[in-house]
Amino acid sequence: MSAAVTDLIAALGEKVSTNPAVRDHHGHDMSRQPLHRPDGVVFVESEADVVTAVKICAAHGTPVVPFGAGSSMEGHTIPLRGGVSLDMTRMNKILAVHAEDFDAVVQAGVTRKQLNEHLRDSGLMFTVDPGADASLGGMASTRASGTTAVRYGTMRETVIALKVVTASGEVVSTGRRVKKSSTGYDLTKLFVGAEGTLGVITEVTVKLHPIPEVIASAICSFATMAGAVQTVVETMQSALPVARIEFLDEVAVDAANAHAGLGLKRAPTLFLEFHGSERWVQEQSETVRDLARGNGGSDFDWSTRTEDRARLWKARHETIYSNQSLRPGCKTYTTDVCVPISRLAEAVLAARADADTAPFPVKIIGHVGDGNFHVGYLIKPEIPEELAEAERLAERLYQRTMDMEGTFSGEHGVGISKLKYLRREHGAGVDLMKALKAALDPQGIMNPGKLGQEG
Amino acid sequence: MSAAVTDLIAALGEKVSTNPAVRDHHGHDMSRQPLHRPDGVVFVESEADVVTAVKICAAHGTPVVPFGAGSSMEGHTIPLRGGVSLDMTRMNKILAVHAEDFDAVVQAGVTRKQLNEHLRDSGLMFTVDPGADASLGGMASTRASGTTAVRYGTMRETVIALKVVTASGEVVSTGRRVKKSSTGYDLTKLFVGAEGTLGVITEVTVKLHPIPEVIASAICSFATMAGAVQTVVETMQSALPVARIEFLDEVAVDAANAHAGLGLKRAPTLFLEFHGSERWVQEQSETVRDLARGNGGSDFDWSTRTEDRARLWKARHETIYSNQSLRPGCKTYTTDVCVPISRLAEAVLAARADADTAPFPVKIIGHVGDGNFHVGYLIKPEIPEELAEAERLAERLYQRTMDMEGTFSGEHGVGISKLKYLRREHGAGVDLMKALKAALDPQGIMNPGKLGQEG
Repeated sequence: MSAAVTDLIAALGEKVSTNPAVRDHHGHDMSRQPLHRPDGVVFVESEADVVTAVKICAAHGTPVVPFGAGSSMEGHTIPLRGGVSLDMTRMNKILAVHAEDFDAVVQAGVTRKQLNEHLRDSGLMFTVDPGADASLGGMASTRASGTTAVRYGTMRETVIALKVVTASGEVVSTGRRVKKSSTGYDLTKLFVGAEGTLGVITEVTVKLHPIPEVIASAICSFATMAGAVQTVVETMQSALPVARIEFLDEVAVDAANAHAGLGLKRAPTLFLEFHGSERWVQEQSETVRDLARGNGGSDFDWSTRTEDRARLWKARHETIYSNQSLRPGCKTYTTDVCVPISRLAEAVLAARADADTAPFPVKIIGHVGDGNFHVGYLIKPEIPEELAEAERLAERLYQRTMDMEGTFSGEHGVGISKLKYLRREHGAGVDLMKALKAALDPQGIMNPGKLGQEG
Repeated sequence: MSAAVTDLIAALGEKVSTNPAVRDHHGHDMSRQPLHRPDGVVFVESEADVVTAVKICAAHGTPVVPFGAGSSMEGHTIPLRGGVSLDMTRMNKILAVHAEDFDAVVQAGVTRKQLNEHLRDSGLMFTVDPGADASLGGMASTRASGTTAVRYGTMRETVIALKVVTASGEVVSTGRRVKKSSTGYDLTKLFVGAEGTLGVITEVTVKLHPIPEVIASAICSFATMAGAVQTVVETMQSALPVARIEFLDEVAVDAANAHAGLGLKRAPTLFLEFHGSERWVQEQSETVRDLARGNGGSDFDWSTRTEDRARLWKARHETIYSNQSLRPGCKTYTTDVCVPISRLAEAVLAARADADTAPFPVKIIGHVGDGNFHVGYLIKPEIPEELAEAERLAERLYQRTMDMEGTFSGEHGVGISKLKYLRREHGAGVDLMKALKAALDPQGIMNPGKLGQEG
């Protein structure tokens, strides 16, 4: 047992675990990254616990890796260099809902579904919805988004303020609960997307939105992928505030049908949602329907009943789990790219053309209103040729994206395996990132081996 | 002549001026701060010029202070410790307009009116509108906003990416032209609001918005200030996307009448604007009209003609220049506070009650949809008792704002005289800011004596 863990047990008692199964659980996530076990896991229950744990780790130079729902897609929470996994899930209190100001203050371990459950009778909603039921601290740390970002923004726009514990164990509030401020460097935005490498987020203040008077979902299938994507481009260029506009290619429709029994036509498909007053929803949906028709789209298949809509979006959110029905025993090699909307059609069609050469199923889904899409390679990783081919295709995809002024992650983050792309995208910006990391974490104990140290 | 200026002249020739009148012009701004002359002024014409100038200054440890339109309200561009003023106004090229992606890439010296003039036939608009015709580099550096931020956001939401020259003279692109990204620390947001203390912004990529089909402005006067503010609070809580909702108290209405001959009733007044399709504008305006009626508001006085609207908003933007008509020979001591919307009524009424005790006219105007308002003390600063009383009232206003979870600047920034409030608002966050400043500008040459070094 390391000296740091011994000191942690002395200070925090039963909140510290060295149980091998617990350490295993905190040594992996939803990515393909190999297991790295922490030396111990601290189940923190308060800001004071976090301060205690970080100060002990700082005294020993021991790594500290925050851990929320464990739903990272890129290995963010894997303790590459051992040390302590800080499990935030017991910090799950909703501290305040300010309905008049459209905000909520929550501990970092609160999950998105928990918050929305709590808000149910308030007429308000928390909008950011990655597939998993992630914690808000984790979502802030990866600058997460999801299906509604096209209308309501990502965590970048949704996080108003944070409380963090710095690498030296100081508590800092990064900002105030106001709509705007011009008082100093934007510390809030610095910690959003920092992937746990600058400090531990303990509290998150997020923007809420009113639940719209009318919510209407629609499905529209297309004769061609080009027609579906062109409809998205034209919708965005008409600047309509569509609430969701999600693309599924034929393979993804197969998966959704098999997994959730949706009975959809096997064709490139858009899932749409409109929010607003009755008249305003009607006006928006008529405009998009006309654009779809012009691009070979079917009539809209409408779901206005809550249960039908819930089933539809559950199927969309669970696409990652539905791949087994397409190829039993497969693992999904997921990618995540985002391009300017003017390059979207070209980017998606090139990805599909590449996919058509692959010896395994390839699925494309996307939050296409933001220019963001995921190509998933359904491989058997124990077959080395398949893994190598997925890596070759992913490399082509990422390079092509960056050549189109795009980014190698729209929402999943950098994590471990994509650190190699950081300098290709950011150039000398990586040196600024390293300088910031060295300034806020001079010992390099916060989630080491990742963003801010490498790349 | 300093050694740095000698070297700058050798490298950049006639782009460098040591003319006393030119130095005077770059030694003050629109604030009450005393003059500090730079040793020299460099009229940079390209990114390469900026790199050359910064490298020479870095070699000599000479301060570098970027200067745009000179419209700062808080002394940001005043070279407190001498050195070199970097005049950005010749870097005024619009480099690209990507109409399909709703963005534009401009050099830092481009002004907001210049960009909108350029966009005139494109159907697009740049929305951030501080009173002055500021440069986009300066607006990014102060995290500026204005009357339309309530709908379209401030520079925080509007700046997509920047090019900057760091304190060591390196060129860095802070991000890419995409709607979202999760690849690393948010360098863009770090430079937005940094007030020229972390590097020189040379290029700004901003979000554009489509010019709406219908724009309708309305004026509504109220029996009481409480009724006007309550209407704003209810409008925001109804989550309608009102495009502008500006408050003017009776003193401000007097000023607007005298300056622009608007002929408005002397009463607390809202200036409103609605953007959208014809049906959607009608629906929004009917809702707000009903809220106003419930709070003692008059009927709406509509302006849908472009000239009338232009006259109205010109009067609003020029309120700072209109104070002379209220008290000839006065100077305006301007403040800038922002509170959560739930505290707005209390904050404005308390500010008015304080103002009613003052021995000089006091004007309150505000971008109240954001919780942001300005109390202007129309003093004769050569009368020491008036200056002291304005300072006493401002101190009460700022402290009360912070006690209400508010911020001591909604949009004007920190500058010089408000550095004393930084720690009251941010606590230990100021130490993080200092660490960031020391990391990116270890010599302390970028706009020294301000944000990141003091507070």
